[in-house]
Amino acid sequence: MRQFHQPPIGWQPILLLTVAIWLVWNGAVLSAESPPAPISASLQVTVDTIWVLLCAMLVFFMNAGFAMLETGFCQRKNAVNILTKNLIVFGVVSICFWAVGFALMFGDGNAIVGHSGFFLRGLDLSPLTNEQYSGVFDSLAWVGIPLEAKFFFQLVFAGAAATIVSGAVAERISFLVFFTFSAILSLVIYPIVGHWIWGGGFLQIMGFQDFAGATVVHSVGGWAALTGTWMLGPRAGRYGPHGAEVIPGHNLAIATLGGLILWFGWFGFNAGSSMAADPAAASRIILTTNLSASTGAIAAAIISWLATSKPDLSMIINGALAGLVSITAGCAYVSPTSAIIIGFAGGMSAVFAAGVFNRLQIDDPVGALPVHLVGGIWGTLAVGLFSVGPNLNSWHTEVSGPALGFLIGGSIKPVLIQLAGVLIVATFVGISTLFTWFMLRLVVGLRVSPHSESIGLDLSEHGLQAYPEFSQSSLSLNTLFHSDRNTLEQTNIPIFSQSQQREVQ
Amino acid sequence: MRQFHQPPIGWQPILLLTVAIWLVWNGAVLSAESPPAPISASLQVTVDTIWVLLCAMLVFFMNAGFAMLETGFCQRKNAVNILTKNLIVFGVVSICFWAVGFALMFGDGNAIVGHSGFFLRGLDLSPLTNEQYSGVFDSLAWVGIPLEAKFFFQLVFAGAAATIVSGAVAERISFLVFFTFSAILSLVIYPIVGHWIWGGGFLQIMGFQDFAGATVVHSVGGWAALTGTWMLGPRAGRYGPHGAEVIPGHNLAIATLGGLILWFGWFGFNAGSSMAADPAAASRIILTTNLSASTGAIAAAIISWLATSKPDLSMIINGALAGLVSITAGCAYVSPTSAIIIGFAGGMSAVFAAGVFNRLQIDDPVGALPVHLVGGIWGTLAVGLFSVGPNLNSWHTEVSGPALGFLIGGSIKPVLIQLAGVLIVATFVGISTLFTWFMLRLVVGLRVSPHSESIGLDLSEHGLQAYPEFSQSSLSLNTLFHSDRNTLEQTNIPIFSQSQQREVQ
Amino acid sequence: MRQFHQPPIGWQPILLLTVAIWLVWNGAVLSAESPPAPISASLQVTVDTIWVLLCAMLVFFMNAGFAMLETGFCQRKNAVNILTKNLIVFGVVSICFWAVGFALMFGDGNAIVGHSGFFLRGLDLSPLTNEQYSGVFDSLAWVGIPLEAKFFFQLVFAGAAATIVSGAVAERISFLVFFTFSAILSLVIYPIVGHWIWGGGFLQIMGFQDFAGATVVHSVGGWAALTGTWMLGPRAGRYGPHGAEVIPGHNLAIATLGGLILWFGWFGFNAGSSMAADPAAASRIILTTNLSASTGAIAAAIISWLATSKPDLSMIINGALAGLVSITAGCAYVSPTSAIIIGFAGGMSAVFAAGVFNRLQIDDPVGALPVHLVGGIWGTLAVGLFSVGPNLNSWHTEVSGPALGFLIGGSIKPVLIQLAGVLIVATFVGISTLFTWFMLRLVVGLRVSPHSESIGLDLSEHGLQAYPEFSQSSLSLNTLFHSDRNTLEQTNIPIFSQSQQREVQ
Repeated sequence: MRQFHQPPIGWQPILLLTVAIWLVWNGAVLSAESPPAPISASLQVTVDTIWVLLCAMLVFFMNAGFAMLETGFCQRKNAVNILTKNLIVFGVVSICFWAVGFALMFGDGNAIVGHSGFFLRGLDLSPLTNEQYSGVFDSLAWVGIPLEAKFFFQLVFAGAAATIVSGAVAERISFLVFFTFSAILSLVIYPIVGHWIWGGGFLQIMGFQDFAGATVVHSVGGWAALTGTWMLGPRAGRYGPHGAEVIPGHNLAIATLGGLILWFGWFGFNAGSSMAADPAAASRIILTTNLSASTGAIAAAIISWLATSKPDLSMIINGALAGLVSITAGCAYVSPTSAIIIGFAGGMSAVFAAGVFNRLQIDDPVGALPVHLVGGIWGTLAVGLFSVGPNLNSWHTEVSGPALGFLIGGSIKPVLIQLAGVLIVATFVGISTLFTWFMLRLVVGLRVSPHSESIGLDLSEHGLQAYPEFSQSSLSLNTLFHSDRNTLEQTNIPIFSQSQQREVQ
Repeated sequence: MRQFHQPPIGWQPILLLTVAIWLVWNGAVLSAESPPAPISASLQVTVDTIWVLLCAMLVFFMNAGFAMLETGFCQRKNAVNILTKNLIVFGVVSICFWAVGFALMFGDGNAIVGHSGFFLRGLDLSPLTNEQYSGVFDSLAWVGIPLEAKFFFQLVFAGAAATIVSGAVAERISFLVFFTFSAILSLVIYPIVGHWIWGGGFLQIMGFQDFAGATVVHSVGGWAALTGTWMLGPRAGRYGPHGAEVIPGHNLAIATLGGLILWFGWFGFNAGSSMAADPAAASRIILTTNLSASTGAIAAAIISWLATSKPDLSMIINGALAGLVSITAGCAYVSPTSAIIIGFAGGMSAVFAAGVFNRLQIDDPVGALPVHLVGGIWGTLAVGLFSVGPNLNSWHTEVSGPALGFLIGGSIKPVLIQLAGVLIVATFVGISTLFTWFMLRLVVGLRVSPHSESIGLDLSEHGLQAYPEFSQSSLSLNTLFHSDRNTLEQTNIPIFSQSQQREVQ
Repeated sequence: MRQFHQPPIGWQPILLLTVAIWLVWNGAVLSAESPPAPISASLQVTVDTIWVLLCAMLVFFMNAGFAMLETGFCQRKNAVNILTKNLIVFGVVSICFWAVGFALMFGDGNAIVGHSGFFLRGLDLSPLTNEQYSGVFDSLAWVGIPLEAKFFFQLVFAGAAATIVSGAVAERISFLVFFTFSAILSLVIYPIVGHWIWGGGFLQIMGFQDFAGATVVHSVGGWAALTGTWMLGPRAGRYGPHGAEVIPGHNLAIATLGGLILWFGWFGFNAGSSMAADPAAASRIILTTNLSASTGAIAAAIISWLATSKPDLSMIINGALAGLVSITAGCAYVSPTSAIIIGFAGGMSAVFAAGVFNRLQIDDPVGALPVHLVGGIWGTLAVGLFSVGPNLNSWHTEVSGPALGFLIGGSIKPVLIQLAGVLIVATFVGISTLFTWFMLRLVVGLRVSPHSESIGLDLSEHGLQAYPEFSQSSLSLNTLFHSDRNTLEQTNIPIFSQSQQREVQ
């Protein structure tokens, strides 16, 4: 390979060698891998499978939504970095979750973790279900679709969890650190929590309910994002001597596109989570999901309008997303009216939580914490408050659904179970991700150098610019928020309301 | 809420209070809301439901298409405003159409309006059909899917109608006015027309045919856009002393993306409108829809090429969309060859209509009128001209489809019925929207101030910039079209052909 | 039409006249066109049809992916041109493939070409299959869906082949030439190759295997792109006296979006290619497709990281796409582990092939050749190497799938058959496209003038700018790579690693 002009750096050949060895090893066992057995598919299996696969594709497409949202909300000088992270992370998660994560999450094991079915191998009689099923993925035996379809649906969820972290730590994290953290998250941390709640673990046994992953996906991603943001510290210049400075997103057109792609993909996220084509459940879920997103957006619009007389686009986007996160745990279990309340409260709390995080100087460039963490917690508790009670859905005969919600006339117990689950997951993900960030800081250092951060990660980490032919605005942040402040205010351009809107404190 | 530094303005607390009261009231009746009854779903119901839901998701995604198209076709200084409108409008429509609109449109009532099923409540035995059905939505009793799925499919259509208005009134309308108008449109005006044509009203009884909403969605949106545009007047500087000045779109990359998303979503729009998974009908509809879009694009390309020796991208986008609108009424009823003719004529007339509107000084920044209004009228009439006759489709046994078209050997009668429907809808929507715009002008004023319009609605209405880090071209409109005209022409840069292309008069 | 100020140029009225005559002729035979016969659809047919239609819609959406990818990877001054090409090309292909191409490809005929079923006419008893089927499209008699659905699925594939060419010849080809070439490709060249492999032609009889079109779509597009790029020559300034100059893409945000849209659409591309809803096959295909894309992206990331210490975004995008192309031929036939190897090798070879093409001074602005041509060849051969053997899939009873792959313990014969097919297709497409380009050069000239290329095709060919309100960076290519080289290097901004990364030679 004489064409490489720069001397290779230490750890990289080792990585390549590792991959090569692994590939050769897998090649050696290739012939031992038996071809999949033909499946005597009933038509119901067919319909269930295409529904789940199409929903999974929509969830995959959320990667494009996250990429556009996060890139648009960050600064131009870091666009390539964020795009690269959002693209490569799904590739990394795909391999990690296939090799290890799925086995820990859904493989047969104990109440803490699964330990069967690595590399999707081992006996599996899917799409046979329940008593007919035999294999190493008993926790998914209630689903009548092929194993590969179960895996792909779960994979795109694991990808979403990793992507949530990406936004909160943006604009100062080292690329290698993010790459490694995502691998660890999808290899171990996410699957273990998932096992507890969806894989037959102790929270599932306890009666904890999380239909489509408000805790499993969004809170896990949110806690990991919180510890990462806290360990990294804020971006340079974000909290100056004169208080918080707003660093505006560089491209709100693609950010809005990203928000709409996420809303679109969320229909697959929630409605596919029955992992079966149940017309009643799917229709109800789509309805509650859309109502909650709508009221989340409306709540954010109203609050920003009340606070500053101006409806704030980035708030409205995050309000809609908070509405979506908030309904994720309960979408199959609540009435349309409850969905409206859940979404409105989710959108409202996202706006207020953004102010709280800001006051705590936890710098989250894209609002991942108010949306995914706060929305995930609220949505999980909301199941205990608003569930219309068990035996609602027919597709999942063994698990009969959550008990009647506290506000609908039920006991306080389901709320307490939900709260216990939230706290247990918070503790585990908090500690395990803190440990991971800490080790990464020890070994490679979490943050890029101040000089790299200043010139932007695109040049320092990638040697590329996202928009090389567009000239940079002379209205740079420094001039905008310091030197020209008086001038701008005199011209009556209400540009500073931005900071008031975003930082409702 | 001590954190709000600016004194709240009068109407806003009232709005919040209203929402709060409504939420509390709904919360109070929550426990009275019975859980949905389990559905003994046949597999056909399942397949119908997932098809309709997936098509509805595609139509939802058209919101992203409209957002990108309209934003890209407008000026940079109004990008945030248009994005915000396109995002929030779907949230508003979701609530309004759920609470009231759907009941007026499809609820049992008389030949003018429905008056049952507000808040989706009341008896409904969906997915039972026809004689087995019992409930308050008899007009949808021919569809064998759950009520929530019927609702969601119809909701995304209502959303499209509201979004059409958004583009035509862009760059000078007050945000509050647009917000309010969208609510009124989806609460009352759109549902009433929809009741006449799809909800068992007098036009449906009369035999008026509109398969997927060329009149119900596109013409209604188009007429509302026309009255709005006319009441608002043109943008400042659009029609100067030296004739029409072209105000070019600021981002044709996202505009093209928007056009392609709309084309993509339209497959769901048209093929889902059977509200059942009929393989023959769905396949035929996809074919006719795509052929019509293709010839619409080709027609616009050829005409702009002939007129100016240069194929105009914005014309081609609008030509494709006009082809799509034109086939919307008849996609299930016409042959592929007819679809080609309908689309070609639709694309052609969009180009010429753009010139006519321009000559009338009706300023429509994105071309919504030539595409949706003219295309919608032409497409509605085309059913009477090209329909291959009744009994074509099996899914809709009660309504046997339109009579044989005039140009295919039928009588002139179906054309006259279609024409009557077009005129009646024009009259009703024209008057009701004029009245609405007029009342809004009285109460709050339709238009932003000249100063706001000049600095852009992003700063004046939202306090945000879409692209804060990109410097504004010094080649501003004024300098471009006045001072530098001679210089530019001497350098042989054929930049002025733009105006000739767009304004074929 | 007095409003056209510029005198029409010779060939344009003739084109319009041709279209007009054709439309009138078709109008004349309209009444003779019988309405489609009602279909007694079984539910399996319904499920197969909606699956294939939804997959086809996803493939249609790849047009948006190609448009964003190619536009983003090219220069700002040519953005309108690329967007226009990518939009209009699907319209042109839709008409050409409907009228002629589909008949040549799948119509009954001989081992070289079909010659029945022009304009989708002639007897066809779809969705009846096999012995029950009677009609002029016997090669598709194994598929149990309506003819229109078969056509639409194949149409979106033909569109993809044409779009591949678009990227490689971008930034210097005349719009009229591209327009004409796309028509010829979809009218004749693509259908003939398709007939050989999928339409019952001699390669299919020989046992050549290409499940979803690595050769039929990607190599055909790739060879056409190679001859076009070679005939056109490189862009001005690309290969200077000091070696290759990198011309960076102008908008990596939309390029990444395009890459993710393509990944999303590819699930439809591959999983829909069974043209039936087989749950086992669909699930397996989605799994292998996603694993291959993931390792393609990872391979490109690792290599660019090793070569330059910086992961290159454009390489990672193309690596993922190369992984997708590489698995296209074998996605239904290989194990997950094989998919990982195929994708990793595909991503690696895309990076190295980019270096080779660059050294040969074949200027391919978007990397279409390394991705589609090299990936297509590799993927086609990989079926012979990695196939798990026949009788894997149940849906396609007559064609039992490829023989056991060479590396899985089979004989060398399947590899040789695949190789023979690759060479035959290379010869035919190479010669026929060279001839086409040559004739086009004779008649109209392939390339825009040097002046047009210098000011950009947007102004010279379309009279529009994509971003008129954004000022051009003063850091133009010339100053960036010549005058300011020393200055920039002194400031330690590692901007030149770009050239090293992209041009691994």
